[in-house]
Amino acid sequence: MAQTRPGGRTARTRAAVLEATIDELVESGYAGLSMEAVANRAGVHKATVYRRWGTLDGLLVDALVLFADRSVAMPDTGGIDGDLRQLARSALAVLADRAGQALIRAMVSAGHHSQVAQVVRAFWAEHTTMVAEIVARAVHRGELPAGTRPADISRAIGAPLYMRLLVTAEQLDHEAADQSAAAVAAAARAGVFVTP
Amino acid sequence: MAQTRPGGRTARTRAAVLEATIDELVESGYAGLSMEAVANRAGVHKATVYRRWGTLDGLLVDALVLFADRSVAMPDTGGIDGDLRQLARSALAVLADRAGQALIRAMVSAGHHSQVAQVVRAFWAEHTTMVAEIVARAVHRGELPAGTRPADISRAIGAPLYMRLLVTAEQLDHEAADQSAAAVAAAARAGVFVTP
Repeated sequence: MAQTRPGGRTARTRAAVLEATIDELVESGYAGLSMEAVANRAGVHKATVYRRWGTLDGLLVDALVLFADRSVAMPDTGGIDGDLRQLARSALAVLADRAGQALIRAMVSAGHHSQVAQVVRAFWAEHTTMVAEIVARAVHRGELPAGTRPADISRAIGAPLYMRLLVTAEQLDHEAADQSAAAVAAAARAGVFVTP
Repeated sequence: MAQTRPGGRTARTRAAVLEATIDELVESGYAGLSMEAVANRAGVHKATVYRRWGTLDGLLVDALVLFADRSVAMPDTGGIDGDLRQLARSALAVLADRAGQALIRAMVSAGHHSQVAQVVRAFWAEHTTMVAEIVARAVHRGELPAGTRPADISRAIGAPLYMRLLVTAEQLDHEAADQSAAAVAAAARAGVFVTP
């Protein structure tokens, strides 16, 4: 790796190229993505982009990594309803954002093979770890039944929002996020997410 | 339209071309779809495909229409839990099928513009109409609160399954479908889907 120092020229090049990748995805989508257009937009040599990222999927993976790093924040409101609402609002913030939408669509278009699948798995593993803490606190407070599966809660919170973005093209608003949180809370209290 | 008679040569050509479109999508995805490959696989003239469907999105739209026609079936088990479970199992059948998966991925890749968006809207409108009957019966039986929104139930049932297919690449099995049905039932009973 040609990393010189944090915040140095190499880091600035990476930021510029990934920013350009996201802008190109917003404008043209995954099918229209090209190394040339990304290099031009970032104002760097095409050879630099090829040397460092190799392929379009290499670019997409690095952009997803950068984006995922920014988008996970642990809620701790003192109650399961507030925590779930905040989780849903965090997901909404990503899914209502043009860059987030472009990256998620690209991730789906790229399909679930190779490097992309690895980044996606790592993101959801980290999300589950965070939700596990939230669930543990809720079980401790007597709000949720013991044995509630964090992975199920993690997926259920985002599912209706991803559905609106990717499938039905319906509005992504606070009402949708809060409804998702309330639905998960009701189902979790009813024991739907307990290990059978 | 050059439709001669139902089940005649034109209908057979349509079936062959749409079958070939789906097979090509399964093999190469939306990014790899070409009119030439579809025509070759269907054993028809390229000119026929261009004349009748015009563009790749024209082909995709017609394949989606044909597929959607086959995949909606009204459950009536006598109880809301059974009806929701059957709805979720129907969605699972589509999403676990290679052709269904290829079409749904292509729909997402094509984006939500023009003709594709129209077919998607029509499908979900029809799905909501069906769910409205299920909800009306459940309200009548006293299982669900009055004012429960059919559109919300319609989306919520499929959401965790689409999430598994498109986002997390997790297994699509009966357990996932039944959990989705149980979660929607609990949330609906708690009044989460009632018009505010």
